[in-house]
Parts: sequence; structure tokens; C-alpha cells
Amino acid sequence: MASGICQEGDGRMNSPLDLNAVWQTMLMQSNVCCDVLIQGVFATGISDHRNFQSALAALLATKLADRAISEPALAALVASALVDDPSIAEAAAADMIAIFERDAACPDYVTPFLFFKGYHAIQAYRIAHWLWTQDRWHLARHLQSLVSERFALDIHPAARLGQRLVFDHGTGIVIGETCVIEDDVSLLQNVTLGGTGKATGDRHPKVRRGVLVGAGAKVLGNIELGEGAKIGAGSVVLESVPPYTTVVGNPARRIGTRHTTLPALGMDQRLPPVDYII
Amino acid sequence: MASGICQEGDGRMNSPLDLNAVWQTMLMQSNVCCDVLIQGVFATGISDHRNFQSALAALLATKLADRAISEPALAALVASALVDDPSIAEAAAADMIAIFERDAACPDYVTPFLFFKGYHAIQAYRIAHWLWTQDRWHLARHLQSLVSERFALDIHPAARLGQRLVFDHGTGIVIGETCVIEDDVSLLQNVTLGGTGKATGDRHPKVRRGVLVGAGAKVLGNIELGEGAKIGAGSVVLESVPPYTTVVGNPARRIGTRHTTLPALGMDQRLPPVDYII
Amino acid sequence: MASGICQEGDGRMNSPLDLNAVWQTMLMQSNVCCDVLIQGVFATGISDHRNFQSALAALLATKLADRAISEPALAALVASALVDDPSIAEAAAADMIAIFERDAACPDYVTPFLFFKGYHAIQAYRIAHWLWTQDRWHLARHLQSLVSERFALDIHPAARLGQRLVFDHGTGIVIGETCVIEDDVSLLQNVTLGGTGKATGDRHPKVRRGVLVGAGAKVLGNIELGEGAKIGAGSVVLESVPPYTTVVGNPARRIGTRHTTLPALGMDQRLPPVDYII
Amino acid sequence: MASGICQEGDGRMNSPLDLNAVWQTMLMQSNVCCDVLIQGVFATGISDHRNFQSALAALLATKLADRAISEPALAALVASALVDDPSIAEAAAADMIAIFERDAACPDYVTPFLFFKGYHAIQAYRIAHWLWTQDRWHLARHLQSLVSERFALDIHPAARLGQRLVFDHGTGIVIGETCVIEDDVSLLQNVTLGGTGKATGDRHPKVRRGVLVGAGAKVLGNIELGEGAKIGAGSVVLESVPPYTTVVGNPARRIGTRHTTLPALGMDQRLPPVDYII
Amino acid sequence: MASGICQEGDGRMNSPLDLNAVWQTMLMQSNVCCDVLIQGVFATGISDHRNFQSALAALLATKLADRAISEPALAALVASALVDDPSIAEAAAADMIAIFERDAACPDYVTPFLFFKGYHAIQAYRIAHWLWTQDRWHLARHLQSLVSERFALDIHPAARLGQRLVFDHGTGIVIGETCVIEDDVSLLQNVTLGGTGKATGDRHPKVRRGVLVGAGAKVLGNIELGEGAKIGAGSVVLESVPPYTTVVGNPARRIGTRHTTLPALGMDQRLPPVDYII
Amino acid sequence: MASGICQEGDGRMNSPLDLNAVWQTMLMQSNVCCDVLIQGVFATGISDHRNFQSALAALLATKLADRAISEPALAALVASALVDDPSIAEAAAADMIAIFERDAACPDYVTPFLFFKGYHAIQAYRIAHWLWTQDRWHLARHLQSLVSERFALDIHPAARLGQRLVFDHGTGIVIGETCVIEDDVSLLQNVTLGGTGKATGDRHPKVRRGVLVGAGAKVLGNIELGEGAKIGAGSVVLESVPPYTTVVGNPARRIGTRHTTLPALGMDQRLPPVDYII
Repeated sequence: MASGICQEGDGRMNSPLDLNAVWQTMLMQSNVCCDVLIQGVFATGISDHRNFQSALAALLATKLADRAISEPALAALVASALVDDPSIAEAAAADMIAIFERDAACPDYVTPFLFFKGYHAIQAYRIAHWLWTQDRWHLARHLQSLVSERFALDIHPAARLGQRLVFDHGTGIVIGETCVIEDDVSLLQNVTLGGTGKATGDRHPKVRRGVLVGAGAKVLGNIELGEGAKIGAGSVVLESVPPYTTVVGNPARRIGTRHTTLPALGMDQRLPPVDYII
Repeated sequence: MASGICQEGDGRMNSPLDLNAVWQTMLMQSNVCCDVLIQGVFATGISDHRNFQSALAALLATKLADRAISEPALAALVASALVDDPSIAEAAAADMIAIFERDAACPDYVTPFLFFKGYHAIQAYRIAHWLWTQDRWHLARHLQSLVSERFALDIHPAARLGQRLVFDHGTGIVIGETCVIEDDVSLLQNVTLGGTGKATGDRHPKVRRGVLVGAGAKVLGNIELGEGAKIGAGSVVLESVPPYTTVVGNPARRIGTRHTTLPALGMDQRLPPVDYII
Repeated sequence: MASGICQEGDGRMNSPLDLNAVWQTMLMQSNVCCDVLIQGVFATGISDHRNFQSALAALLATKLADRAISEPALAALVASALVDDPSIAEAAAADMIAIFERDAACPDYVTPFLFFKGYHAIQAYRIAHWLWTQDRWHLARHLQSLVSERFALDIHPAARLGQRLVFDHGTGIVIGETCVIEDDVSLLQNVTLGGTGKATGDRHPKVRRGVLVGAGAKVLGNIELGEGAKIGAGSVVLESVPPYTTVVGNPARRIGTRHTTLPALGMDQRLPPVDYII
Repeated sequence: MASGICQEGDGRMNSPLDLNAVWQTMLMQSNVCCDVLIQGVFATGISDHRNFQSALAALLATKLADRAISEPALAALVASALVDDPSIAEAAAADMIAIFERDAACPDYVTPFLFFKGYHAIQAYRIAHWLWTQDRWHLARHLQSLVSERFALDIHPAARLGQRLVFDHGTGIVIGETCVIEDDVSLLQNVTLGGTGKATGDRHPKVRRGVLVGAGAKVLGNIELGEGAKIGAGSVVLESVPPYTTVVGNPARRIGTRHTTLPALGMDQRLPPVDYII
Repeated sequence: MASGICQEGDGRMNSPLDLNAVWQTMLMQSNVCCDVLIQGVFATGISDHRNFQSALAALLATKLADRAISEPALAALVASALVDDPSIAEAAAADMIAIFERDAACPDYVTPFLFFKGYHAIQAYRIAHWLWTQDRWHLARHLQSLVSERFALDIHPAARLGQRLVFDHGTGIVIGETCVIEDDVSLLQNVTLGGTGKATGDRHPKVRRGVLVGAGAKVLGNIELGEGAKIGAGSVVLESVPPYTTVVGNPARRIGTRHTTLPALGMDQRLPPVDYII
Repeated sequence: MASGICQEGDGRMNSPLDLNAVWQTMLMQSNVCCDVLIQGVFATGISDHRNFQSALAALLATKLADRAISEPALAALVASALVDDPSIAEAAAADMIAIFERDAACPDYVTPFLFFKGYHAIQAYRIAHWLWTQDRWHLARHLQSLVSERFALDIHPAARLGQRLVFDHGTGIVIGETCVIEDDVSLLQNVTLGGTGKATGDRHPKVRRGVLVGAGAKVLGNIELGEGAKIGAGSVVLESVPPYTTVVGNPARRIGTRHTTLPALGMDQRLPPVDYII
């Protein structure tokens, strides 16, 4: 990993992420590819750029441009967001590093940056959220719609998401309007963080730091998944889950004893033996 | 809401939908947008058109044109369907209004019309179904295939669907060949209305009026979801469900007491306390 | 069905697949279409080609070309794979025939070839896997990424898949890096064959011949689904399943008595009565 | 021709052009086409629109959208120009009628509107000129550049052009920064109205009403082509030409006697016998 | 050159062109390319096809598909023309061979087939002319318009053109509605075969066998360029030219003595010394 | 103009062009644009890049990518040429500066870089020529073909061109296989530097330093346009022209007295009074 990026055992950053060090690492990694059919993707996607921000703007513009909004117009829009709120680029870099650290199938930084749609969807959300906070709802919804069409993830631009997030595989994830997702969370494919019908107001889950939600789990309503909670694949969660607790089943019930690490960092969807249901 | 569109409390239309009044409302709503990057989408998608039918044809052509069939050719095909069967445009308008009424995150008519892929998929199905009834199977299957690729929903063109339908988020929905879905039904993402293997004949679910099927529920075989039934998220339903009944779990079992309203109109995927299993 | 293609009742091929006979059948089927808006798709997709291999290369190039890699470049890449490993084209033909035999909604060979994204995803995986075995990881990951974006299926190129596979509807399927899927397997939509976190090494399921995995089932960890096993829709499977056994539920438990046929060939997701849980 | 559009024998409009009557004529003409491969072009290009302005905005957006500026963004830009300066749409309609009247190969209004690139280039110039007058030079030059790439005509946005202009075939026409072209002028392909080097200031030709410039003629410098002048094909004109006079040759010399009609309306590039050189 | 294709010194075919022999030659030539960035163009353009007709249909579809008409729809349209009138494919092959024989910069058959826009424009005209003879004027004009936009050549679909034609470089060529061009003619860039104003009826040049028209020459009116005539570059021709005669200048005058060979086959735009003007 | 770029009155560079100083100037100029519809073009075209080479590679990839070769693949190809032969980027910068200095309608460096197709065509030629010198003829011809289709200029990749070249407007320019064009030359639109038929060998014009060729002039055969020669618009030149001499007419004859400056730098197509013919 790039020197200068320190991280404690629990995933919490000790020092601010050194964006330039990350960028230098990406430049080195992008120069490894020498397959003539694909090396241009590394060149135009990474090494031709001035810095991480420029590459990120180009990435999102490339992925999301459509007949409605052109690639240069989107790139300029993203760039203006990155200038206005420097934390967006930092979060985007932190997400990339988190995937590298948690995903056994991810060999470097540039692979998720260029190829993982779960990563792309989160970064597109970050721009849509910035637009939402500026009351540019139409553009924000357009980006949300593009993400849903292109990547099959649906993240409402009003939701509030932290950083060091991993949406592994990504397909089918739905995150509602009043959701909150804190740092260091991992969601597998087909996870729903859904609401409770047509009522307005705060009606979606709050996901605390370090939570892991397994594939296909449904978490519904204004409930809390406590820090370090682990939601088994396929679970249907209708009530709040205490910190460092594993729940499983339909409806979800607590199993096993309280664990002590952040499950999101381990990405293990497997569960304790089921006869340990408490 | 536009004057002239009356609807009873239970979602059943009293008077025929006034398509022109709906269209005037949409024109007003599309003129609100003044963000230079996106206002052209409202202009070319809505306000440049003569009427709802023209805008609908352009919408589907824009969303579904690919290298196989061009945008103008698709627009002309859709337009000919809308002329041949005027109920298609009426159903398309009714679906749009239903989303506005049931989805707390939907602020007006034009947002789902332009941006919700669940809405787009249903309208594309309506055209594919019209083609199917005219024995133009190849074109119908092509449209089905496009919807599956673009939106990640798979609706067989032979299925029979009513109106005032809401497919919220939409990703992963599968609706089989001999399905019937009546009016005022709401399906969440990843719902399967599936068949029973390679047998031919009538082998898919019949979903009666006002049913709500929660996220990720699987309903399999030629069974009936009675009027006003509610299927909990993640449920696996293998037997018919009586009217106004909630089922939950894998396999699904009845919980709580008989409710009295149409759950599809409330969109509440949450459930009564689970210890009320009957 | 084309003469010269013999198959026993259990789906095992007796004689090698006669690729030329399959191709002649496809040519006949593609000439049936005379709808002016769609017949060009049959012409440029099938009947203009020299043989099955050429049509397959064009199909994948058409479906997967993007701004990164052009259609002719992809077609040439696929063609070189088909020359290098002739078993790829044979497997692709066998998959197509398997869909025709198992899917009641599939009327001929050319329909899945042109229109079923589950079929397209498997064939794209076959090329990505060939690239992976040649240490062309960047290109392999790019194809994996394209399949995930276009079709909403995620198949790791290092996984090892057999033939006569049916991925019905396809949306949401996830197949991990160390998975093995033998011949004659059927997977429904939203099936996860997932791993156990960030550990490296052999950590994904092994799916033996003839297994049927129902919609939305999650199978997690280095466990074995024995020959002829049947996994009920929505099941969460954390332990190995013996041969010719049906499991269901979250967590999955064995139900009914041992069956004797390969469930993948029957595609029946329905289950024995649930009170037969053993 | 549409009733309500009056024109004197010399091409000068007596009464203001009735844009609505022109539009009704176009709607009738666009409904004639029933070839399934092309009728969608008439539908989406003309009959789906509210009025001439909407169709014109869509036409230019369709023809000029590129990866830099999207089709809806261009359509909205053109629409705002048409609202700001209503004379643009009137001139565009007048040009279309002029082609119909002067071009023997043009059967109706909608053919040049949809298919003649000389017509498209003039209308794109009108938008670029509007941008230029508003000091939006970058956008104006981008449109100029697009016209040069797409149509192989180069019209500087600062030039001042009248209406009822016909640029027949159009390829290779070059019109410099300080050119003035009055009403009722016809230019054939490869005509240059060029400047005199790198000097700034007024340095391009002034073309008065009714002038016809034959194919490949070069007219260079701040000279005047008098009302009703006729420039023979291939001529090189370096000095002003008196009204109602024909010049021919390289360098151009006056031939024949003074004519009395506007040659632009007759479009006859042929010349009097050459021994009549004066 | 491919055996089996015999041609006399004067360019007249002795025996019918053997289309299959031509095709075999093209297959051999297309296999020479092994540059990974471009070999796919040879594969998908030539070697993947069944025969010359299939490759020609794909070529024109690739070059002319636009947002109005899709590539497969165009390919099917071209294919139906080639079936209906087998002389079109023969003429297309003969044109290709003629370029190879006359153009010193052309190394084989496949280079003009894939890369020369003058060749592409003539073949597109052949399809447009076939449409015109079937009274499908709208489609014919659309193809004419596409050729003018894409290639900057304008050939009216009603014109009648022979075979073994070479339009070298091609940019700016204009051929009017009532033109006739016989076999073995060569036109350089920017040649106009133009009419005489807005009169209807037969009003364009008749170009007899073996004529060479130099770059930028303008030939205007219903005049005849006799067999073997040679028109100097930049000439303006307003009167008929006798057979085997060279004309030059503005206006064109006869120079030199009667020549005896077909100038189109030699492609020499140079002229006898000018003092030989007669 | 950027400091550090020195140029004598005759256009000859005294000191090597400082590419970094040019690039800094371009960065400043690209930041001026604040029109939301077009500023993304300046951002993605210039300011997002690392240096002039990266921007040039992106420019050519953007302009020339087509269905045959993707944008990233072309960008990587161009980049490898720029690394292999650093003089290409220097020549590209020198051309850009030359346009700024000679074209009265050009306000800065970035305008021709982004918007002038004559400039784009020359730079694409430089890459095609590099490919040609490496015996990659197929790719070279493909680029030549793309330039001819997109820009309507045809430059043979084997021709040898200097730097500080201005191809004003550009449409219709044709430059043959054995042409040589030295530094500081200006060509107007529709100029032909053509050959003498199907003979092979050295058969195209040699254009010495500082020559200006006016619009539509045809220069044919292996003749020499001496240093500082000026060719009048529409001229047909069949014999060599002495240095610092003006020729005009069809056929071209010498006029006026010997001039003393380089006409290419002045761009004045006008001529001395014609009665000065010598």
C-alpha cells in the first residue's frame, strides 16, 4: 500500500488521507498494463490526468454521459463539485482504498477505480448529493436515474453516506431518501435499505460505523443498525439491531455472542452455527 | 393534482382519466426547470411535444433505441400502437399518477415520467404486449430483451397487466409469461412472479387488485394473491394468499389480522409484530 | 430439434455436439422473421455469417463494445479465443440448446442466442476466462465489468464453469472467484454464489452436475451442492447439500425425500409441502 | 404552395410570411410518407412537434449534437434563440420556401427541411450568429466548427446573411467574417467568399440582393457583387461587379448584355455564348 | 490480380466478372492484416461474411447507419436490393477492381472496399437508385442526404451510372438528376456535373464511356462528353465535347490532337502543352 | 503571445519552440471560457491534461474515434507516436501558433487547437505518417480514410509535410502520395496537389518554404513551387513556378513582378492587377 496512508486495525484513519500519495500510487499501477486493447483505458482514465480530481471527473463523465448530458458537460459539473467540496474527492479516494483492503479479489487501487460499478455508483451519488444540497433537484434526480439504469443501484441523492464504503458487486442495492450510512460500512448486492410506505419524514434505516449487510438483506423503516452490527445474507430486518450483534433470518433474529470487531472490514457473510439463535 | 382527475379513497377511478388535463399539468411542471444542463431534457421530452402520446412515444424511443432499431423507427412503432389501442396511453398516464400518489419521494408527474425506470419498463411492456397480441413475437421479444438489458427488469410480453401499477426502484423484477396483474398493484425491487419449470400452460401467479409485494419476495406457480393481499419483503410464497391478508417469511405464513385497506396504495413494506403469526 | 444432436434423458450428451448441424438449424430459424423493423437483426446477427463462431464473435462484440474497446476489436479478440480453444464455441452452442430444452418460453435456438442476457453473460464469461488463463487480467476484468454494467450479472473470470448452463432471466446473479459450476446447472435470477470475506484461497461454492438454484438463493462459502441438489428460492445455504436433495429456507434445511432426477433440467422452483421438513 | 404565402415575381415578399400556414403545409407533407423504415424521421422530425420553432430546434439539435454538447442541451439553446429573436424562425421558413421555388429537384417543403445540408448549415449559422451578437464567441465558434465538420461548409458566425437564401448542394462553401449577403441570393457548391489575408477589418465581399454565384467561383476581398449580378461557375472575381451583370472566367470578365431578372431565382449557371465577352 | 478476371486493354470486360473469384481474392487479402488495432475491421468487414453481397451490405450499413435508420435495418435493405437486382453487386465489384487498376496508390481490392469514400458513395448511390426506381423516394433522398453529409459527395438517386467507375478522393463531386455516366469513367474531386437552373426535364450532362474529368472541372447543362473525352482540371465546360478530345480552360477549349486511348483508364490529369490550343 | 517563443519576421524560428511555455499559455486561455454549455470542452480538452502531448492525444482520439477504433485505443496509439518522435508534438504546437499569427479570425492558441478542422487534419496526418514509416500501412490508411470522411481533406500518409503549416478552412484539400510540403506553407480550401495518373514513382508537387496556394488551385504533377511562390485562387498549375513569383489563371501564367516576402505568412489571396501578366 502507498506509504503515508495510515490506518488503525479498526479501520479508523489516524491521519488525513494523503491524496497526492494515493495519486502517485495510481499512476504507477496504471503504467503496468501493456495490453494494447486495454492500455488506452488506463491512459485516458488515469495517467493522462493532472491529479486524482481530474481523473475522477473524467471517470464519472465517461460512465454517466448519455444523450441528455454530454461527457464534457458532466466532467465540468463534477469538477465544480470537487472544487466546492474537497471532501468529496477525499471520500472517493478513501472508498477506493477500502475496497482494496477488504476485497480479496481486488489487486490494487486502479482496478476498482476503473472497473467496479459499486464504486462508480457511490461516487455518482456523492455528486448527486452535492447537487441536492444546492437545491438542484432535477440534475440530482437525473444522476440518480442514470445510476439506476447503468448500474442497477438506486441511491436517493438526499441520503447521507460516509466514507470508506464498499458496495460489493452492487447490483440491486436500494438506499432510501432518509437513510444515513456512517463510515466503514460494507453492503453486498441486492441489499435494500427501504422505507415504510408513502409517509413522508424520517423513515429509512440508520446504519452505524462498521456494519456489514449481507447479500439480499432487507432492512426496513427508521431503525438503527448499531456500530459493528452484522446482518446475515437474506435477512429481513424490521427492528433495530444492537451494536456488535449478528442477526439472521426472515424475520431476523439475533444469533451467536457479541463480536468485537467491525464486520464490514472482514466482509464475511457467513454466520455462526444457526443453533446459536438467541 | 390536476383538476378533473378524481379518484376514490380506494384508488379506483370514478371517472375516465382526462388525458388532456394530465398533459397540461405536465407542461406546467416541465417549465419549472431552469438548470441549463438539464432543462433541455424537459423541453425535448415534454414541452416540445403536441400531446401526451407524442411525448410517450419519444420517451420510449429515447430509452429503448439501440443499434438494432433506431429512435425514429421505435417512435413511429410506439405511435402506431398508441393510435391502435388508445387505452395504452391512458394506462401510461394512470401509472404516472399512481406513482405520484404513492411514492413519498416523487414530487410531481414529470419526475417519474422522465426518470423512473420502473415506469419506463411498464410502458415498454405495454408496447411489447400490443406487438405480442398482433403475433409480432420477434419485435416483442426484442423489446423485452431491451428492457432486461437497460433496466434489469424482465416482463414477458404475454403477461397481462392492469393499470395504476407502481414498480418502485424496479431492479430485478421478473414477471412470467402467464402472469396476470390487476389494477392498483405495487411491486418493490427484486420481486419474482415466477413459474414452475419447463411445463407449458398456465403456470404463473395471478395478482389481484391492490396487492403489495415487498422487496425481494418470490411468488411461484399458478397461485392467487387475493385482492388487497400484502406480501412481506423477502417472503417465498408457494400457495395462494386470501384477500386482505398479510403473509411473511420463507416459506410465507399468514400473520396478523385481516386488514381492510389496499396495501398497494400505502406502500408500507413493514409488517405487524412477528409473534402475531397465525 | 436438429438431427444429429442426441441427448439422453439425464441431459448428458452421448455424442459430440455437431456444431454445423446446429448452425444450419439457426440459419433456417433466422430466415423466418420477416418483420422489416427487426429482420435485419437476424440477418446481421446470424444469416450473414460464415458459421457459428463468426456469429458468436459478432454477437459478443455487438453486446459488449463500448467506448473503451470497439466492436471490430472485440470481435477479433473473441474470434482468436474461439480459434485457440474450440471448446468455447461448443459450450456456447450447448448452452443455447439447453435453454431451448429447459425454458418453456423459448421457441427455438436463435431466440436465446439473440435475446437472452443470461446467455450473453455466460458466453462473455467464457472469453474473460480464456483471457484470465492467459494472464491477461486487465482485459478479463474489463469484460467482467462490462457484463456487470450491461447485464447486471457478475461472474468472476477466474471461476470455472461447465456447459449446458441456463441462467434464467439472469439479473443479479453473482459468481465468485473460486466457484466451480459443473455441467447441466440452472441458476435463476439473483442467485449469489458468494465467498467468505476478505480471506484469499478457495472460498466459494462448488456446484455439481444438474443442480437447480432457485431465485434469490444465497449460497455462501466453500461448500458443495451435490449432484442433482435443488435449492429453494430465497434459501440461504451455509452448509453443503447432499446429492439429489432439496433444501429450503433461511437458513436452509432439507425437505422431502431424496429425488432421483436432475432438477436443473426441470427448472421447477416449487417445492414439496413445507411440513415435510426433515 | 400553401395559401397565405404571397410573393411577387421578383422574389420580394409582399406580406409577412405566415409561419402557421407554412407549418400546416409541412404537417400535411410529412404525413404522406408511409415507408416503415423512414416514416419515423418525418414523425419525430416534424409531426410530433408543436410548431415550426420546436421542429427547427429539434432539427438543429439532431444534426449538430456531438460528444461536446448533447441533443437536448442544443435543442434548448436553439429554442432560446428562437424566442429571443423571432426573425430567425421566419428566415428559416423563408429559406425553405425559396429552395422549393428555385430547385427543380425539390418536391415540397419538408424535403429540404429534413434532407438538405445547405439548408441545415444556414440555419445553424443563424444560431451561431445570434450567439456571436451576444458575445458568446466560444459557443458560436463551436457551432461553426460543427457545421464545417458535418456539412463541409464554413460560415463565420460574424458574417451577416439575409433570408430566402439557397446554398445548393453546399459542399465547400466558405463565407468569411465580414461578408454581407442580402436576401434572395443563391450560392452553388464550392463557392468562396474570401478575405484578403491576415489584415483585420472589413475585408470580405458584399453580395447584394438576387445574386447567383456559380459552382466553384471564388470572390475575394471587400468588393461588391451588385444586385442581380451573376457569377459564372469557376470564376475568380477580384473586382466589384455592377448590378445585373454577368461575369465569367479566371480572372472574371463581363460577358453579354445587362440582364433584367434576378439570376438567383433562376439558378441557371449556364452563360451567354463566350464570344460576347465585353 | 485474381485469375479468372479477364479484361482487355481498353477496359471492356470480355467475360462476365466472376464474383466468387473476386471474393476469394478479398478473403486472402483481408487475412494479411495482423495489426491488433485494425485487424478486426478486416474480420468484421470481410472475412466473417458469407460472400461479397453480405460484406457489401454490412459495409454500406456500417458507413451509413445513423440515428434515423439502424445498421441492421440498413443492412437488410441493402441485402434486399442485392437480391432483387444482382447487377448491383457485380457493378460494385467491378468498381473496386477498376480502382485497383487505375489508382497507383491502391495496393489491392480490400483497401478501396474498406477505406475509399468515393467507392462507398457510388455503392450507396446504387442502392438509392434502386429505391428510386421503386418509387421509394423518401428513402432514396435520405440515402442521398447521408452520402452528402458523410462523404461530401452529392449524387442524385435518379441519375443513371454505369460501372467500372472511379471517383478519386471524391470530396465535392456533384452529379445532377438527369445525368448519365457510362462505364469506365473517372471523376476527380470537386467535379460538378450540373444543371441549368430551375427548369425541369433533361438538363444535365451525358458522360460517355472512358471519359476522364479532372479535379474541380464544372460541366454544365444537357451536353455530351463524347467517348474517351478528357476534361482538364479546373475547366468550365458549357458545350459538348467530341469523342477522344481534350478540352481545358475557363471556358473550356479544345487542345492538342485527337488521342486514341480512354483517358479514364490512365487517370492523367496533366495536359498537352497549352500552346496547342485549337 | 507566450514569452519564450521567438520568431523572425520571415517566420523562421530562431530558437526551439518552448513547448511548456506554449502549454502554460493554453491553460490560461482555456480558463477564460465560462459558458456552462461549452466550458467542459475546454476542461476535458485542455486543462484536465498533464501536458500538451496528453491534450493532443486526447484531441485526435476524440476527433477520430469511430466504430472501428475506440477513443482510448486511439489515444494510446497517438501517445506512443508522440513518445517515439518528439518532433510531432513540436510541429503540432508550431502549426497552432502559425494559425494564430496568420489568421485574422483566430484570437488565441486554443481556438484552432479545439475547433479548426484543417489543424486537426494535419495532426492526424502526422500520426498516419509515423505509422507509414513503421510499415503499419493498414492503420495509416484507416486514419487517412477517417480524415477524408470527417474533415473532407485527403492527405496521403506517405506525403512529407513540414511544420508551421496552415490549411485554412480545409475542405476539399487533396495531397498526393509523393508530395513534399516544406515549412511555413499556407493552403486554402479545395487546393489539389495532385498526381499524373496511374504511373507509380515520384509524381506529385514539391512545395517549397513560404508558398501560399489560393482557394481551389490545382497543382498537378512532379513540379516545384519555388520558395515564396504565390498561386492565385482557382489557378491550374502544370509547370514549375520560380521562387517569389505569383502565377494565376487556367492555365496559370506569371503576373506582376517578383515579390520579396513569404506570401504564406500574409495569407493574401488577392493578386496584382491582371494586366500585369508577363
